Parts: sequence; C-alpha cells; structure tokens
Amino acid sequence: MDLMTVSQFLLVYNAFSFTIAVMGAATVFLFLRSFHVAPAYRTALTVSGVVTLIACYHYFRIAHSWEAAYVVNGATLTASTVVFNDAYRYVDWLLTVPLLLVELILVMRLSRAETISKATKLGLLALLMVALGYPGEISNDASTRWLWWGLAMIPFAVIVYDLFVGLKNSVDSQPESVRGMINAARWVTIISWSFYPVVFVFPMIGFTGGTAQTAVQVGYTIADIVAKAGLGILIYMIAMRKSEIELEHVAPVAIPARIAA
Amino acid sequence: MDLMTVSQFLLVYNAFSFTIAVMGAATVFLFLRSFHVAPAYRTALTVSGVVTLIACYHYFRIAHSWEAAYVVNGATLTASTVVFNDAYRYVDWLLTVPLLLVELILVMRLSRAETISKATKLGLLALLMVALGYPGEISNDASTRWLWWGLAMIPFAVIVYDLFVGLKNSVDSQPESVRGMINAARWVTIISWSFYPVVFVFPMIGFTGGTAQTAVQVGYTIADIVAKAGLGILIYMIAMRKSEIELEHVAPVAIPARIAA
Repeated sequence: MDLMTVSQFLLVYNAFSFTIAVMGAATVFLFLRSFHVAPAYRTALTVSGVVTLIACYHYFRIAHSWEAAYVVNGATLTASTVVFNDAYRYVDWLLTVPLLLVELILVMRLSRAETISKATKLGLLALLMVALGYPGEISNDASTRWLWWGLAMIPFAVIVYDLFVGLKNSVDSQPESVRGMINAARWVTIISWSFYPVVFVFPMIGFTGGTAQTAVQVGYTIADIVAKAGLGILIYMIAMRKSEIELEHVAPVAIPARIAA
Repeated sequence: MDLMTVSQFLLVYNAFSFTIAVMGAATVFLFLRSFHVAPAYRTALTVSGVVTLIACYHYFRIAHSWEAAYVVNGATLTASTVVFNDAYRYVDWLLTVPLLLVELILVMRLSRAETISKATKLGLLALLMVALGYPGEISNDASTRWLWWGLAMIPFAVIVYDLFVGLKNSVDSQPESVRGMINAARWVTIISWSFYPVVFVFPMIGFTGGTAQTAVQVGYTIADIVAKAGLGILIYMIAMRKSEIELEHVAPVAIPARIAA
C-alpha cells in the first residue's frame, strides 16, 4: 500500500491538533456558561461539555499515536514499528455518541419519565450502532466490512426515525422561538452522523493508499467537530433562549411581590 | 507462561484508555453538578467525584505501565525489561473502596452521629478487606492466595451484612421515591464488588497464560467502572431527586411568606 506524502501526514496531524484546540475550547465555554442558564438547562450544558472533554482527550491520544506511527525524513515518510491506534475513535464514540443524544433530549426539557425513556432508548441504540461498526472497521475484507456496515445502519435508521417521528410532538410543544434551533440541532446530528458511514465505505470502493488514509482521517475529524463542538454550541444557544423566555414569564409575578413588600 | 497476542494486548490497553475517559468524564460531571443539588448532598457528590478522580489518575499510571511492559513487533508481542505494576490497583482501592461506602452513607443523610459511626465502621472494614487481599495477589502459590482470599472475605461478608441488615432502618426511612434507587446503589456495590474476588481466583483454578491475563485486566476494569462511575451516577440521581423533594416541601411555605410581607 502506498504511504502518504509528508504533506498529507502533516495535514492530518494538524487537523488533529486543531481538533484538540476546538474541543478544549468548547469544553471550557460550555462548563463556564452552564452556571448562567436556567437550572433546568444546566445538565444539558454540562453533558455537552463532558462530550467535548472526552473528545479532547481522545484527539490528544490520536495525535500522539499518529506522530509515533510515522518517521519523517526530509521529503519521505516511512512507517515506524508502532501501529497507529485507530481504536481510540471507537472508544470515544462508545461514550460520546449516546451522550450527544442525551444532551439533545435534556435541552428539550421533557417530563422526567419521557426524558429517561427516550434517553435510555436512543442511548442504547447509539451504543449498538458504534459496537456493530467496529468489527467492520478492523477488517480488511470488503465483504466483512459491508456486513457490519449494514448491521450498524439498522440502529442508525431507527435513531433517525426516532429523532424525526418519535420526537415530533415534543418538538411541537417547544416555545416557538426555539423550534427552529431544535430542528437545526436534529439536522446537524443526522447530517454529521451520516458522514461516518460514508467515510467508512472509502476503502471498500477502491479508494485506498495514502490519499484515502488522509481523506478518512480528515473526514472523521470534520464530522467529530460538527457533531460534538457544533452541536454543543447549538445546545447552548437553545438553552440561553429558553432561559430568557422562562425568566420573562416568572419576572412579572416575582418582582411586584417584592416591590409591594 | 504464554504471552498474550498483540490483539489481546491492545484490547487491554484500549480498555484502560476507555476507563481514563470514563473516570475523567464522571469526575467533571459530579464536581460541576455538586453545585446544583441541595447543600446536604453536595459532600456526597464531591466524594463521588474524588473517587473517580483517584481512579482516573491510577488508570493513567496503569495504562502507561502496561505500554512500557511489552514490545509490539508486527504480529508478535514480547515482554520488555519493565515489569507491569499491578500494585497501582491496590493503592487505588485502599483509597477509593472506603470512600465508596462513605458516599453511599452521605447520600442517605442520616443523623450526624450515625453518619460518623457507620462511615468509620464500614470504611475501616473496607480498608482491612483490601489490605488482606494484597499479600495473596502478589503470591504465585495457590494455597497462599487462597489463605489471604479467605481472610479478605471476612470483612467483605461483614460489609455485605451491614449494608443489608445494618442499614435496613435507615433505608426504610428514606423518601419513598428514592428508596428504589438507594436499593439499586446497594446492589450495584455488592454485585460489582463480588467481581473482584472472582477475578482474583482465576489463576488459582488453572486459568493462566495470555487469555487469563487479558480476562483479569478487563474484568477488574469493568468492575471498577461499574463500582465507581456507575455508583457515582446513581448517587447523583438520588441526590437530585432528594433535592427536588426537599425543595417542594420548602417552596409552598417560603413564597406566601414573602408575598404576605
């Protein structure tokens, strides 16, 4: 198999380092802002920050593993004896993908029973989806890869259906001024998640060698940034707007009472 | 003794890295959320976060010690001159196992005297249990291992008895809507803790070599995740529910008083 060029190797490395910075920045922002939204939305922001923190840790590991796996010598790149550990991605997704659905549900502020049942159902489906993808990812055999790809697409399809049909009533009951943003959050989730099965297919459609390796790594990285930091910021905007709306409804009662005193 | 295969080595390494991420995420979540429960439950969440933080540190050390102890060369694994330091686990348990019982007692919000007496008694028993296990763990002689295993099981049996019989009245006095969760927390503790003596016995029942080594490491890791991060999240849910119940009882009194003024 052709190795990458030195500039492809560096492009991927810099994309990883960029992602460490993005995820770290998003984490600190979400954690600090979680103190300044209405209490009902704090958990959503904390969970969003936990997701970007986990991703920040894994990109740190990924960047170092990438660096150790290759030796740059002038204009030529050779593989070292260390193997690049791609499993960090799956380990990350096992944790973060269920949590991304949890933050989306938390910011909608459904009833306790609905929150628990939807978060459990979607979280388990997400876990299943990631777990089914892994045996395919580590295989070099195209038909094995297609088999696991197909199996992982089943829970993915159920999640998409649930986000659109299952949550329809819950979305309709949201305040009108945030309905558009919640819809955007659903779309960001679906579109960024659709990236992963596409990137997964690259080696199976004859897209191999150094250029494919570069495209796969950069592709997963962009998808992670949109799905985690991008969604986190959207969740934050929804939480801020909803906090303002709820404050407006509370204020006229609370203030006159105090003034009257 | 057979060494592991490269994929067994990597599976264990990835399980360790996964645990670093889980413990780190649980720590930050518990610390941040500790500000948003009723004051009576903040210590329970802080202690729960301290436990996962200590575990996060030790898994960091364990993962690096594991990496240093082996050399991967293509498809073969050889031992390096560095010995894997399994003692990190016992050092971790000496600190975290007593604290796990303390967080369980704190979230029950017993009287001050009862909290101190139960936390001291259970904490010391837990310390004794871990200390008695260690001489067995470092021995290669089956009868020595069985001796210390048997001795460590005595404080373990007392802890189980105390959690079920000694805490019965205290559990019965909890608000009805959290009694189920507190029961779950007791069961999570007992079941996850039962894992350790079972994993300990593996080498004594002829389960040795690379596969046993892999099973022992992954087994302890799963037990640690359930016993620490799993219990921490359960403690958080109990604290949130109890905070809400207590707030409901306070609010109807507080608001009319202000309006009346």
